[in-house]
Amino acid sequence: MGTTAGLPEELADTTPFVLAPWRSPLARALHRNRSKPESRYFQLATVTAEGRPANRTVVFRGFAEASNQIQLVTDRRSDKLGQIQANPWAEACWYFTQTREQFRLTGRLSVITADHPEVQAQADRRFAWQKLSNGARQQFHWPQPKAKRQEDGEPFAVADLDPAQPLDNFCLVRLEPLAVDHLELRGDPQNRTRYVYQGEGPGEGIWDAIAVNP
Amino acid sequence: MGTTAGLPEELADTTPFVLAPWRSPLARALHRNRSKPESRYFQLATVTAEGRPANRTVVFRGFAEASNQIQLVTDRRSDKLGQIQANPWAEACWYFTQTREQFRLTGRLSVITADHPEVQAQADRRFAWQKLSNGARQQFHWPQPKAKRQEDGEPFAVADLDPAQPLDNFCLVRLEPLAVDHLELRGDPQNRTRYVYQGEGPGEGIWDAIAVNP
Repeated sequence: MGTTAGLPEELADTTPFVLAPWRSPLARALHRNRSKPESRYFQLATVTAEGRPANRTVVFRGFAEASNQIQLVTDRRSDKLGQIQANPWAEACWYFTQTREQFRLTGRLSVITADHPEVQAQADRRFAWQKLSNGARQQFHWPQPKAKRQEDGEPFAVADLDPAQPLDNFCLVRLEPLAVDHLELRGDPQNRTRYVYQGEGPGEGIWDAIAVNP
Repeated sequence: MGTTAGLPEELADTTPFVLAPWRSPLARALHRNRSKPESRYFQLATVTAEGRPANRTVVFRGFAEASNQIQLVTDRRSDKLGQIQANPWAEACWYFTQTREQFRLTGRLSVITADHPEVQAQADRRFAWQKLSNGARQQFHWPQPKAKRQEDGEPFAVADLDPAQPLDNFCLVRLEPLAVDHLELRGDPQNRTRYVYQGEGPGEGIWDAIAVNP
């Protein structure tokens, strides 16, 4: 089904953003699993320079304003930044433990670093920093992630960080899904349902939804 | 630390299998999270023919006998089979919700299909089939995964499958980890610990364990 297909062009022009059809089942999953802290985590796969997969748990930081882009934050010093710059493709795998359903969201990542030129992008990056807990902000102040730990094994000092102004290595990352695969496992195996949503292109707002075999 | 380093060769020959040093923290995590069904699931990332990442939730089916290889099962008709044949590299991301710790296991996958020539491999494949629930076996009898669903939307019929003899499309898959990244998030952020285990090669049994910054 094309959600904006058939709209007269002048009307489409005044409708710059259309909620993708997978947003509704994803919102339902987030709501039904809200008692579980892990319902806000998903696994993000990227590809390394050697063409090998990398996969890690990240925290869902909401959708970008008036878009279907999924937000996360990361450290510029992390391995995934270089991976994204060389190959922006990603697949998020989001499993909801309470309702036993999985979303696989495939698309391209974009990164908003401290030197991103757009004013609105910097405002969004600042806002993402402000919404972090003080504990979550601390890791951006720590020494290089994954570098050998100093022998003393002491806990890192808690720094007094400005909640209004992000550190330079703080990045906002956005995943623009182009295909979404939603699998429901609850109940008897033979009653499983699976839908594949296929976007026609970034920002197009036109999606096909197809019922497929689980 | 090299776990078998320094052993005289004749002794090493009688010790074909050494438990990798990450097996102990992983066993502890499995034990401490055993009340959560999702503690037996992890996300497996592979790379597609187009060089894009793919990522899905799979069920942990134990370790292969006398090895550090992690087992899962899959359908020969699934997308991942072709991906593995073209690029055997994978990264498993295993997040434990109760103890808030993550294991990332990087390595190569091998597949035991119905026409694998080794007798022991076929016995292992048969045993994996026998251990499945009847419900889990059913999906191997269903029509092509991810193909368009028939319009009637009827539940699939429950077939009477031989629990002793796997269907031809049933595959046993093994991940041989060459690097493992263990991150513990519990407690205050500044007390986080992270260890990277680096193997010297498949089946070598020699691993370095390095404390790194989280």
